[in-house]
Amino acid sequence: MTSNMYTIQRISDADARAVIDAAAACATQIGVPQNIAIVDESGHLVAFRRMDGAKFISIEIALAKALTASGTRKATRDIAPVTIPGEPGFGIQNLAGGRFTTLAGGIPLATGNVVVGAIGVSSGSTHEDQTVAQAGADFFAARHHGQR
Amino acid sequence: MTSNMYTIQRISDADARAVIDAAAACATQIGVPQNIAIVDESGHLVAFRRMDGAKFISIEIALAKALTASGTRKATRDIAPVTIPGEPGFGIQNLAGGRFTTLAGGIPLATGNVVVGAIGVSSGSTHEDQTVAQAGADFFAARHHGQR
Amino acid sequence: MTSNMYTIQRISDADARAVIDAAAACATQIGVPQNIAIVDESGHLVAFRRMDGAKFISIEIALAKALTASGTRKATRDIAPVTIPGEPGFGIQNLAGGRFTTLAGGIPLATGNVVVGAIGVSSGSTHEDQTVAQAGADFFAARHHGQR
Amino acid sequence: MTSNMYTIQRISDADARAVIDAAAACATQIGVPQNIAIVDESGHLVAFRRMDGAKFISIEIALAKALTASGTRKATRDIAPVTIPGEPGFGIQNLAGGRFTTLAGGIPLATGNVVVGAIGVSSGSTHEDQTVAQAGADFFAARHHGQR
Repeated sequence: MTSNMYTIQRISDADARAVIDAAAACATQIGVPQNIAIVDESGHLVAFRRMDGAKFISIEIALAKALTASGTRKATRDIAPVTIPGEPGFGIQNLAGGRFTTLAGGIPLATGNVVVGAIGVSSGSTHEDQTVAQAGADFFAARHHGQR
Repeated sequence: MTSNMYTIQRISDADARAVIDAAAACATQIGVPQNIAIVDESGHLVAFRRMDGAKFISIEIALAKALTASGTRKATRDIAPVTIPGEPGFGIQNLAGGRFTTLAGGIPLATGNVVVGAIGVSSGSTHEDQTVAQAGADFFAARHHGQR
Repeated sequence: MTSNMYTIQRISDADARAVIDAAAACATQIGVPQNIAIVDESGHLVAFRRMDGAKFISIEIALAKALTASGTRKATRDIAPVTIPGEPGFGIQNLAGGRFTTLAGGIPLATGNVVVGAIGVSSGSTHEDQTVAQAGADFFAARHHGQR
Repeated sequence: MTSNMYTIQRISDADARAVIDAAAACATQIGVPQNIAIVDESGHLVAFRRMDGAKFISIEIALAKALTASGTRKATRDIAPVTIPGEPGFGIQNLAGGRFTTLAGGIPLATGNVVVGAIGVSSGSTHEDQTVAQAGADFFAARHHGQR
């Protein structure tokens, strides 16, 4: 009898924390305390760190960025252009109970081309958030010889 | 072993009421009854006054303005320009369960450069709301020789 | 004029992660992967870990336990007895937007008698959740020569 | 032409603050910092004070107590007995979006037998909350030579 179960690759707890460490090191280097969230391939929270001094209102935004990047399998800032008025994605930010965001700072984490989770960063400018999220994503890619 | 507890400055109950008094005096002077909310550095309500005649639907808006100003550590009206379509912050108003707003009238309250709370005002035009919130913020700054 | 700012002690990022490490070590020892959340004295998330295999539906429950323990300054299981029908706290679980819980597994973290945060654990039985939360709370108390 | 407008008596901003002052004086006397909310006859917030040290989770509970007392025109603790399992009001705590509560500490404010608002108090034990709410209600009754 053959199994037809569907096998999923999911980011591990250990990897999630290592990605947060890499992102937090970048945040420390640029001098911006950050909220850093890692979700799995289903959008559920795996790990989170609020560095001392990060904004409380950005906790939910970091979670939303990670959720959106995991769910769309795209970097959040790459979604933004199609959501302006007149474009096909206009209004998508209202979905997912207000947890869908196109603010920069959410990046999927993939091995090969399979998305296994995502990182979301928020408390600085969107440029700073993106920089810190990218540091986490780069670390993950290097560790897994993966990409994007 | 050393303690590394994180020490926070928070607006006091007495200060919160004095800020409301100052803002309400301004509202009386310009003839616009207002809802005036003060939250602490974590966004939690410390004091509130609805002047006789202020709009009930603006109660929640005053709370949202104060929450947003405390959480972002910025005046709400200064956030608005980066949230129009095509700008990096487009869509941010949908976050925080609908309690994030860029309507003028929310201003952080700081001592030195540490945000200890925020004021949110709503029931008049956004110009009137901003004027009244500024009166409260100015009072607080004068009392504490702080700024912003 | 004198400043009367209100000074608050808040759990640090570093302490929050150390408490999670201690709780996770206990969870590993009893063989139950757990969701472990640390919130600050205002109920905002500071750190979170979902150990591989912990239940996704328990993520929110761990957060609720930590929020409740921080907000009430009591262990969640100690609140339960006064909430049964006929007791004065009956119905309190419906408050706080459904984020108030009396399930065992939420414990405040204090130095001296000042609550600076809380731990919430969920994914096992309530007995297992309580055991793991207590391991985290004991570690924190030992580190800070505090109590409760 | 006759007017058939419906005239409403509503607690004033000035009275709301005076009631809070009276309740806060009682809270200080018994040594329990409290969250104190006053809503109008429509359940909308008129005034609020969080005394330094009152629990953040009890902010919403104070608001719920005031809302419930204004809406039912009954003291919240008097509603509790009919809401236990088997009684006709069982489950009513789930209504009003989780803002209906039978916890002691909510009392209507009336002139003659017309309810013009309500006070809700929360952060202490239910006994302490009730005591402080009663101090506020007694002050209001004395000021208006009204009653329950």
